[in-house]
Amino acid sequence: MSSLESDKAMSPKLTVELLRQLRLAMKNCKYFSEPIQAYIIPSGDAHQSEYIAPCDCRREFICGFNGSAGTAIVTEQHAAMWTDGRYFLQASQQMDNNWTLMKMGLKETPSQEDWLISVLPENSKVGVDPWIFAADQWKNMSKALAGAGHSLVAVQDNLIDAVWLDRPQRPSTQLMTLGLERTGMSWQDKITALRAKMRERKINWFVATALDEIAWLFNLRGSDIEYNPVFFAYSIVGMKTIRLFVDLKRLEDPAARQHLQLDAPSRPELSVQVSPYEAVHTELQAVCAALGPKDKVWICDKAGCALTQVIPKTHRSQISYTPLCLAKAVKNATEIQGMKTAHIKDAVALCELFAWLEKEIPKGTVTEISSADKAEDFRSQQKDFVGLSFPSISSVGPNGAIIHYRPLPETNRTLSLNEVYLLDSGAQYKDGTTDVTRTVHFGTPSAYEKECFTYVLKGHIAVSAAIFPNGTKGHLLDSFARAALWEAGLDYLHGTGHGVGCFLNVHEGPCGISYKTFADEPLEAGMIVSDEPGYYEDGSFGVRIENVVLVVPSKPKYNYMNRGSLTFEPLTLVPMQVKMMNTDMLTQKERDWVNDYHRQCMETVGAELRRQGRKEALDWLIRETQPIA
Amino acid sequence: MSSLESDKAMSPKLTVELLRQLRLAMKNCKYFSEPIQAYIIPSGDAHQSEYIAPCDCRREFICGFNGSAGTAIVTEQHAAMWTDGRYFLQASQQMDNNWTLMKMGLKETPSQEDWLISVLPENSKVGVDPWIFAADQWKNMSKALAGAGHSLVAVQDNLIDAVWLDRPQRPSTQLMTLGLERTGMSWQDKITALRAKMRERKINWFVATALDEIAWLFNLRGSDIEYNPVFFAYSIVGMKTIRLFVDLKRLEDPAARQHLQLDAPSRPELSVQVSPYEAVHTELQAVCAALGPKDKVWICDKAGCALTQVIPKTHRSQISYTPLCLAKAVKNATEIQGMKTAHIKDAVALCELFAWLEKEIPKGTVTEISSADKAEDFRSQQKDFVGLSFPSISSVGPNGAIIHYRPLPETNRTLSLNEVYLLDSGAQYKDGTTDVTRTVHFGTPSAYEKECFTYVLKGHIAVSAAIFPNGTKGHLLDSFARAALWEAGLDYLHGTGHGVGCFLNVHEGPCGISYKTFADEPLEAGMIVSDEPGYYEDGSFGVRIENVVLVVPSKPKYNYMNRGSLTFEPLTLVPMQVKMMNTDMLTQKERDWVNDYHRQCMETVGAELRRQGRKEALDWLIRETQPIA
Repeated sequence: MSSLESDKAMSPKLTVELLRQLRLAMKNCKYFSEPIQAYIIPSGDAHQSEYIAPCDCRREFICGFNGSAGTAIVTEQHAAMWTDGRYFLQASQQMDNNWTLMKMGLKETPSQEDWLISVLPENSKVGVDPWIFAADQWKNMSKALAGAGHSLVAVQDNLIDAVWLDRPQRPSTQLMTLGLERTGMSWQDKITALRAKMRERKINWFVATALDEIAWLFNLRGSDIEYNPVFFAYSIVGMKTIRLFVDLKRLEDPAARQHLQLDAPSRPELSVQVSPYEAVHTELQAVCAALGPKDKVWICDKAGCALTQVIPKTHRSQISYTPLCLAKAVKNATEIQGMKTAHIKDAVALCELFAWLEKEIPKGTVTEISSADKAEDFRSQQKDFVGLSFPSISSVGPNGAIIHYRPLPETNRTLSLNEVYLLDSGAQYKDGTTDVTRTVHFGTPSAYEKECFTYVLKGHIAVSAAIFPNGTKGHLLDSFARAALWEAGLDYLHGTGHGVGCFLNVHEGPCGISYKTFADEPLEAGMIVSDEPGYYEDGSFGVRIENVVLVVPSKPKYNYMNRGSLTFEPLTLVPMQVKMMNTDMLTQKERDWVNDYHRQCMETVGAELRRQGRKEALDWLIRETQPIA
Repeated sequence: MSSLESDKAMSPKLTVELLRQLRLAMKNCKYFSEPIQAYIIPSGDAHQSEYIAPCDCRREFICGFNGSAGTAIVTEQHAAMWTDGRYFLQASQQMDNNWTLMKMGLKETPSQEDWLISVLPENSKVGVDPWIFAADQWKNMSKALAGAGHSLVAVQDNLIDAVWLDRPQRPSTQLMTLGLERTGMSWQDKITALRAKMRERKINWFVATALDEIAWLFNLRGSDIEYNPVFFAYSIVGMKTIRLFVDLKRLEDPAARQHLQLDAPSRPELSVQVSPYEAVHTELQAVCAALGPKDKVWICDKAGCALTQVIPKTHRSQISYTPLCLAKAVKNATEIQGMKTAHIKDAVALCELFAWLEKEIPKGTVTEISSADKAEDFRSQQKDFVGLSFPSISSVGPNGAIIHYRPLPETNRTLSLNEVYLLDSGAQYKDGTTDVTRTVHFGTPSAYEKECFTYVLKGHIAVSAAIFPNGTKGHLLDSFARAALWEAGLDYLHGTGHGVGCFLNVHEGPCGISYKTFADEPLEAGMIVSDEPGYYEDGSFGVRIENVVLVVPSKPKYNYMNRGSLTFEPLTLVPMQVKMMNTDMLTQKERDWVNDYHRQCMETVGAELRRQGRKEALDWLIRETQPIA
């Protein structure tokens, strides 16, 4: 799956009064010395999270549009909202006509910078909340505005919060501690490894702002953000200091206190000093005030500019990917074992679902929503289930062609024997995170549906079976997933794969497989990504075949320059429907791959189904993994 | 082929005296107000040409190293030269021990910036010739130096020229005019199209500095630089003005005067004002002095900073690829026809060569050098032959594994029945430019040689036969060329293809097929690139199979989103040696491709060989194009 989707009904939000109040705030000297002529409202939170908590849904609050990507800008005269092709329809339905929808990707649509320059009076001030505006965005926007005689200004108090009277509280859920048996590495060892990286690069301090990096570093999990087992926090790590900024109430829990050794640190340099979440700014100022002339502070270039700008330029070392992001991406043996276990349990749940669907669909009572609920139900019966890893994309027929579809009561279709069904879903277990897409037909698929499915399958196999040298970046594999589709004149307009966390975010950097990202880090053994090519026939059906795969060493015939080779091992073990395949279109190698994959599903998941005594699902699995000729 | 190579013997140049003089010049106030502590000597000329004229070989003059890529830096105490892995051996042999070789790509090697910062005294001035230092290089270098308290300064007089007493004159060869029958578009129409692009982007002036762009724009050719039919010039184009800066003596030729309508322009806005080559700086200053407040001047970000910095920042619009570069890359029908004709003639010459080699090699008298000379001889017999398009890479056995090899008397091997022979060569004809590599064996290749050749062939075919959507960038196809090699654990460490000019430079932007370039422009019908995967077994043999291919529309079964599809059509029509293929490793589709390709070679080149009465070559072609089973 690839992004968050709406769960609200599609009627426009009335924003006349809200906009009036926001414009008053833009002139209100309580917030700044001079009025501002425009205010930018991005979608993110202060941690540049992909999924955000309700208290951070400021762009949705001001304009009504609740898709995952979009930036609103309000001037004295205008209100405009930029989003991409996935959301044109939804945004136009959710926003009233005080708002202009700016369709990104269309030639005639101006960039935010160009639009601002075209509508602003001379010498305007454009305000932004520096906590949620990333440093790299600030750089580009302020440069463009300055070139036209305007200026970008940081407004410390968020103006949306000022007019959002019933804004929800920031969540502060209970922290879950993870022991060595889950993480494979203590937080103390992670700190030590981080410090070694810092020493290597002559860095004295590191500021962590990404929530999944902080959760990973401290072997802690929360549930502050739906689908993401993270908690609101910052951290600042020096060579002898560890500072953690969280709501202090969370640390009244003895388990958390003991995990962090708050009351009896083993060694002084591994003593964690905890401060309130909001104190990070002041504390970072204090750290920076005490810097030596050559001291350097690491911060991600995607961190908010409020913190970034605290670090004096001469001491600031901005990086695209932090050492935590890189370390987190390469899973250790314990994490890999956990991910394997989680995927077997997940496969058990999906075998149960598909067996159940086969029985129930003919009755005409199963809908996109009830099927997704049933899948969640089966998953929740598995050990260490925590929740879903993203909202299920459960889509029938034409809904399957909407890449980021999420069933709503008013779009909910019934599963039938006549239409293709695409289910993209996943879960968080305490041992791992899953994300799987299967496309199936419960009646007889058309020749064209099978043809398209088979192109996608060929692409999936081409990536999954690819052998490539160590040091290869994932984007170099993207075309393998498309070659068969391209040959038929077809394509899909999304990337092929994303990094997957281990009981963490279902989307994580710094690796992936996409024609879009050239800043990705090379793949290495232990990294985990998705392999999910697709094909979408507008108004008719969608196909996507997604496995989560582990990067593993490969031993081909030769070993050029001793570089070593890599390939992928599927972690997802759910049969791919043979009925959807036109097996005549497959090469012998591809047929062997399918049979070998199904043999693995049968062996591994079959054993677990037997163990759990889930007979019907086992029968289904046996049937669905029969070899093809 | 991919770059220029040495033709000098490998003994170090003695540089004690030269360095002493250069260091004196660095302190000499004739050239600047204050002494400089370091001087940077890049390899390029003032036009960022890949191949340079003898008068521009300043880096070679000062250090002795004559490879195509390298930057020398001289300080009061040190002299260091940076080059890449292709040239480590050669550079170490050509430089005396006054020089430190800086091996780029090795972890321990500092960047030029870091090295300068480590060796310079505080507050140093680093000098550079702003004509040959590109604007984008200036930006990076001056930023890095400023960060460490130093400054980069432009030294108008080149200090190498000051100590280079017998420096050759800048060439000023006769201009060749090309009529519509060769170019398909008059220079007047090209100017009009350029102005339309300028109007579209609200640009008032365009400064052309790349020699091939100026040659293409004016439909003129020269021979100032070996292998490149270009001439030293600049051009400045405004909405009503066309300025051309060249050695005025060249325009005493009536043909050139008439071609440019110098004595009777058809319309005032198409009147070309000619000025001396050196006047460009003063004239650009005059243009900039008269700019309106909103006027914009286009210049490539790779242009020298001397000219770039003449344009005030507020008026400067820097682009990665100029509109001329883009327009030149998409060949029109006349140019395509010319390229086809040139490639047929080139194939005739190579068929003759290979037929001749088959006869002569058993006598033991053919060497790498004499084979390359013979190839040039056969090519020169073809109509409208102008010269070679690059120095031939004629390499036997282990020499074939040196990617940028060029035979020298002391490395020259004899062609035999026991070793693989790799010939990468090409020519300039008045109707087009060629570049072809064939790898052959005149005895019996080993199973391993055949195996490697066949992986490379599979890669070549995978690219050549690829079908891909309109808008695809060439770098997305690079992995297709490697998949078969990767599967066997093999690879090659160069890109897969480069743009090819039409009777212009054999390497041109802005398209190509490489894992390295993500700034390439999307492929479109009419573009011409090379397809040249390879494999190199150090100390043993090299394989490369290179065709020049034309991007053409393709009509696959479907047409997703009406985007249209593209594929490649080989322009090169020289048989690929079946003896080198392990046909068991080929799929049926690949065998069909080989047979179809050989049928085209036979039909097209066979007809021309018959017409030219070249019987032996025709017999060879008939034998070499027999279908494989």
